Amino acid sequence: MTPPRPEPHTPDPTADLYDVITRRRDVRAEFSGEPIPDDVLRRVLTAAHQAPSVGLSQPWDFVLVRDAATRTRFREHVLTERDAFAAGLDGERASTFSRIKIEGIVESSLGIAVTYDADRGSPQVLGRHAIADAGLYSVCLAIQNLWLAATAEGLGVGWVSFYREDFLRGLLDIPSRVRPVAWLCVGPVRAVADTPDLERHGWRSRMPLEDVVHYETYGSQVTR
Amino acid sequence: MTPPRPEPHTPDPTADLYDVITRRRDVRAEFSGEPIPDDVLRRVLTAAHQAPSVGLSQPWDFVLVRDAATRTRFREHVLTERDAFAAGLDGERASTFSRIKIEGIVESSLGIAVTYDADRGSPQVLGRHAIADAGLYSVCLAIQNLWLAATAEGLGVGWVSFYREDFLRGLLDIPSRVRPVAWLCVGPVRAVADTPDLERHGWRSRMPLEDVVHYETYGSQVTR
Repeated sequence: MTPPRPEPHTPDPTADLYDVITRRRDVRAEFSGEPIPDDVLRRVLTAAHQAPSVGLSQPWDFVLVRDAATRTRFREHVLTERDAFAAGLDGERASTFSRIKIEGIVESSLGIAVTYDADRGSPQVLGRHAIADAGLYSVCLAIQNLWLAATAEGLGVGWVSFYREDFLRGLLDIPSRVRPVAWLCVGPVRAVADTPDLERHGWRSRMPLEDVVHYETYGSQVTR
Repeated sequence: MTPPRPEPHTPDPTADLYDVITRRRDVRAEFSGEPIPDDVLRRVLTAAHQAPSVGLSQPWDFVLVRDAATRTRFREHVLTERDAFAAGLDGERASTFSRIKIEGIVESSLGIAVTYDADRGSPQVLGRHAIADAGLYSVCLAIQNLWLAATAEGLGVGWVSFYREDFLRGLLDIPSRVRPVAWLCVGPVRAVADTPDLERHGWRSRMPLEDVVHYETYGSQVTR
């Protein structure tokens, strides 16, 4: 990775936040496999590392995996878990799922395993005493920063969650106290879909905002 | 809340993604208490609702709390939890913590309780069979979208985590199957700090990116 660039990042004309949030997709099939320029990768990781974290603990780590053998082994494991999920589906669900590609592990340019280290900032993490998972939440905030920055840079990101945490620990020599949170497939793409894959394939449709907004209490769900 | 605007959002000149990521702070002391315009709030919530989610389950809900009595009760609970945390600190840590404001619950314009509903999209949430917490992760991605959109709109956001989940369930009539994930204080601010509060007060400093980037395996942590 290149050293920090002394000059500030020049905003990309397509990097408007709302535009990026709308364009962001969970990419599976469209990776081109082209390399990610070092300066682009650094900006994306820097964005992730600027996320908020409970007690400023920054409890995330990013393992950059380019090795083909490692990625092939991970993919084999993921396909086994895919089969396990498929085995529990009936009829229409099984048929719909069979058409959905769930990962681009070897086609993407880079795998990024994101992990959570609960010991970071310990023993007294400010804001975590009442909610043990608050550190885990911080890691997810970093992932979303990474995802949006990658989108602004024209890269695709696909979050793979068809894996067992212990398998990934073993694969990447992750200590037992550290928890794998995500495997992200990252890289240039040939195209970005307008609609989420799962909606396009008829797995599930997006809900209107009104369905998830409540006023004053959870029980009252009146759209104004 | 106003109905959806038919016209697309006009990008704010200050809404460059990297700029927003850098300017975003966890706000406690700077809320002005001014109202949030309806169209701004709608854009912020829409951004949250556009987050990725496991199996397209969109398992989040947003409870908008303006009621002063509810917020006052929540604040009293949070201050009790603050005392509980403070009681476990010694010497320098206790002294440093005593100077840190941890919430702006009543000074902010709006409280947004964000929750996780594991039943959304059940029984078969695509991508959650191997990792039960994947739905919880999705909620956090929505929170980060919300936080960045609010920052682009000139609003401050402060995530309060000094509370017991069951207290918040009781306060907002949240069903037992639904898990509170965050209480966000949201509203216009008089100013935004350049440096995180916890760093400014000497609680903890930010780490360099190099400390959290690994190559090929977790064990190898060589900065290139």
